Amino acid sequence: MSKNTFQSPKGTRDYFPELMSRLRWIFDRWRDVSLRHGFEEYDGPIFENLELFQLKSGEEIASQLFNFEDRGGRRLAIRPEITPSLARMVAEKAHSLRVPVKWFSTPRLCRAERPQRGRLREFFQWNIDIIGSDKILADAEGIFVAIDFLRQIGLGPDLVEVQVNSRTITSALLVDSKITAERHEHIFSIMDKYEKLPGETFANYAHEQGLTDTELSSVRNILELPDLDAARDLCRSQESRDELRKLNDLRDYLDAFGIGQYFKYKPSVVRGLAYYTGIVYEIFEKTSKLRAIAGGGRYDHLIKLFGGPELPATGFGMGDVVLLDLLEDLGKMPQITTHRAPEFFLIDAAEEFFPLALRITAALRKQKINAEYSPKRQSFGKQLKFANTRLAACVIIVDEETKANNTVSVKNLKTGQQTKINLDVFLEHPSKIYENKQSL
Amino acid sequence: MSKNTFQSPKGTRDYFPELMSRLRWIFDRWRDVSLRHGFEEYDGPIFENLELFQLKSGEEIASQLFNFEDRGGRRLAIRPEITPSLARMVAEKAHSLRVPVKWFSTPRLCRAERPQRGRLREFFQWNIDIIGSDKILADAEGIFVAIDFLRQIGLGPDLVEVQVNSRTITSALLVDSKITAERHEHIFSIMDKYEKLPGETFANYAHEQGLTDTELSSVRNILELPDLDAARDLCRSQESRDELRKLNDLRDYLDAFGIGQYFKYKPSVVRGLAYYTGIVYEIFEKTSKLRAIAGGGRYDHLIKLFGGPELPATGFGMGDVVLLDLLEDLGKMPQITTHRAPEFFLIDAAEEFFPLALRITAALRKQKINAEYSPKRQSFGKQLKFANTRLAACVIIVDEETKANNTVSVKNLKTGQQTKINLDVFLEHPSKIYENKQSL
Repeated sequence: MSKNTFQSPKGTRDYFPELMSRLRWIFDRWRDVSLRHGFEEYDGPIFENLELFQLKSGEEIASQLFNFEDRGGRRLAIRPEITPSLARMVAEKAHSLRVPVKWFSTPRLCRAERPQRGRLREFFQWNIDIIGSDKILADAEGIFVAIDFLRQIGLGPDLVEVQVNSRTITSALLVDSKITAERHEHIFSIMDKYEKLPGETFANYAHEQGLTDTELSSVRNILELPDLDAARDLCRSQESRDELRKLNDLRDYLDAFGIGQYFKYKPSVVRGLAYYTGIVYEIFEKTSKLRAIAGGGRYDHLIKLFGGPELPATGFGMGDVVLLDLLEDLGKMPQITTHRAPEFFLIDAAEEFFPLALRITAALRKQKINAEYSPKRQSFGKQLKFANTRLAACVIIVDEETKANNTVSVKNLKTGQQTKINLDVFLEHPSKIYENKQSL
Repeated sequence: MSKNTFQSPKGTRDYFPELMSRLRWIFDRWRDVSLRHGFEEYDGPIFENLELFQLKSGEEIASQLFNFEDRGGRRLAIRPEITPSLARMVAEKAHSLRVPVKWFSTPRLCRAERPQRGRLREFFQWNIDIIGSDKILADAEGIFVAIDFLRQIGLGPDLVEVQVNSRTITSALLVDSKITAERHEHIFSIMDKYEKLPGETFANYAHEQGLTDTELSSVRNILELPDLDAARDLCRSQESRDELRKLNDLRDYLDAFGIGQYFKYKPSVVRGLAYYTGIVYEIFEKTSKLRAIAGGGRYDHLIKLFGGPELPATGFGMGDVVLLDLLEDLGKMPQITTHRAPEFFLIDAAEEFFPLALRITAALRKQKINAEYSPKRQSFGKQLKFANTRLAACVIIVDEETKANNTVSVKNLKTGQQTKINLDVFLEHPSKIYENKQSL
């Protein structure tokens, strides 16, 4: 038995109740916001045929995945993202789905990469996707959902910004600068380094990657565009102006949604993944050095690649790891209990009354009311102390009088008020005990 | 690209919104019942070191798991159950946990076995465990939680029974019949076949497995005990009578919990897994031929095996696959919508009013109210039809009057009543529109 047997595998977490309750707090809000915006929940299997991931990301993705063979010799891999499953599922049902499809998911994902701050081998990711609309409104709605969640958990426009760009605009601007289309994928990968490298290092890197001084200067001019107005000044062709119009429309929609102040035009955001086709964005917390909170954009050809019809699509992913780090760093994570505080806690005055305490507990739980009792035989005082530890609202005291006269004493632990009540009357409407303040 | 690329892997499911919403309905109830009974949620990683599973179930378990190596050569496997992770986690924190620990989880699990009705390669399982109590009350509480869930979803005592046994009683009865302890594990595996094989076949099987006629007769006598009273008549030693007393106590606790009518003594329930140490039980639907809905029992030595102190434990697992089949078969699964019906649906009388409709949508969503609008440009009539498809409670009509006088028309789609209201007044308290029935 190796010493690692009793530890969670490298790069994974044990979700003890303290962590699990914080995750659940996030999951509940992801789900609630998604439903509020009219999205339907889906999920896929935790593993897929390895080929599915290779189709989207190339053969070499296999080395970054946890992959294996089943006994039938099928090559499988744990999913590193849910978009391939989504594309496969939408492609399969494309004939019967009403478009636009608005789907969300909160999948568990795994990547066989080196663990570091903000990146683990196992994590959760909220995915929002709108499929079947080529309208900028759909991109705006995706961003709206993300921001609606973030501001709900206390991350407002003072802290958060959506850095938006369009790959088609950047392409159009590159063409205007005489850099031809077949080189754009390569240039994007250089641009992607701009924010991550110091100025001099970036210049050296760009030269190494084959950019001339003139080209580097053009690329820099694009990357340093401060806003959409400046971008318009740089546009020479009608095509680049038309593309820019779409980003203006996006900003207008965000204004209509009341979240225009989160918008930031950022030409260095190109997203590494080759499948993005238009608008791309990343959401950052402005004061921290953390990775992006979320990233997304438009991917109009992916459904077709996965065997479906041509269906334009847009969406984003938001992981739990950066989010948890951020909420901790900013002190924005509320105190969350790991259990649901009981409304009533049963205390027996002596062991002989314990079966009666169990009966009352059961009668309350049958009414879907959270009731607890001491799992150990202990003194009245210790039972009361435990009731306080469990944050119980009221205690119900079961004693000689309960047996003799069918009455219980109910004590409100907040106010200290105590009342006697007939047990049957109490069980008829247990929560009335809160309303009837005179008796308490 | 193989033809299977675009299908979910063998034995797994695609959770389209129709299935996902039914699963979510179950998950929500599993979670709610767990919290109501005072349990805390935990989870573990989706994969563990392979050794962890071998420790509990032997070397040969590897062939029944999806197992793989990471780039560091570590042997890992997707979890087929969560109990090993639970035991590992509890063992690690045993010094700081307040016992009894009451934890629940609803993990996703995978097994590399042949898919069949009730068994898939990927499934979900509700786990309830109480760790640190050797009291029969803890076993009773576990059963109570399971039954409280089942009756809440419409599976009452007319349909469901808990088949209970104790391995220690069966052992004591076997000893009374002169079958010595070292053979009991083997006899249990024979007993486990009793309900699954016809009488003659079972006898042949038992003989093949080395039972004499006398022993088979003793085993049959035990297996056919109709109730606890009959079992008591068979008890010769004090030890077997003491053990039987515990099952009587269990039944008394279930009575106190108001669920005594679900109890059924069933000596053939021994559970295959060697780690169970005392009370074991399986929950069945009585009218169907489906597998057990749930199974569980006491496992007092497992935490120690996983590196912790000696901590007695009891719990059960309930899978989603049999449960879904059962609810479908019995017609007990309610109609569930795949989306949350909006409270308000915005309709614009013409394209020029659309931005205003968006603004009102956003103002409502900011108040955490579910508001929708037509994602496509379409006629008034089609927007209204779509609002009905989405099961909207009210539509809000944005038209010339909204622009001119800041008023909107709100129409209740159920009653057909329509009212005009100042937009700011409406947005102050949107839900008031329901209460104020005179104006609607």
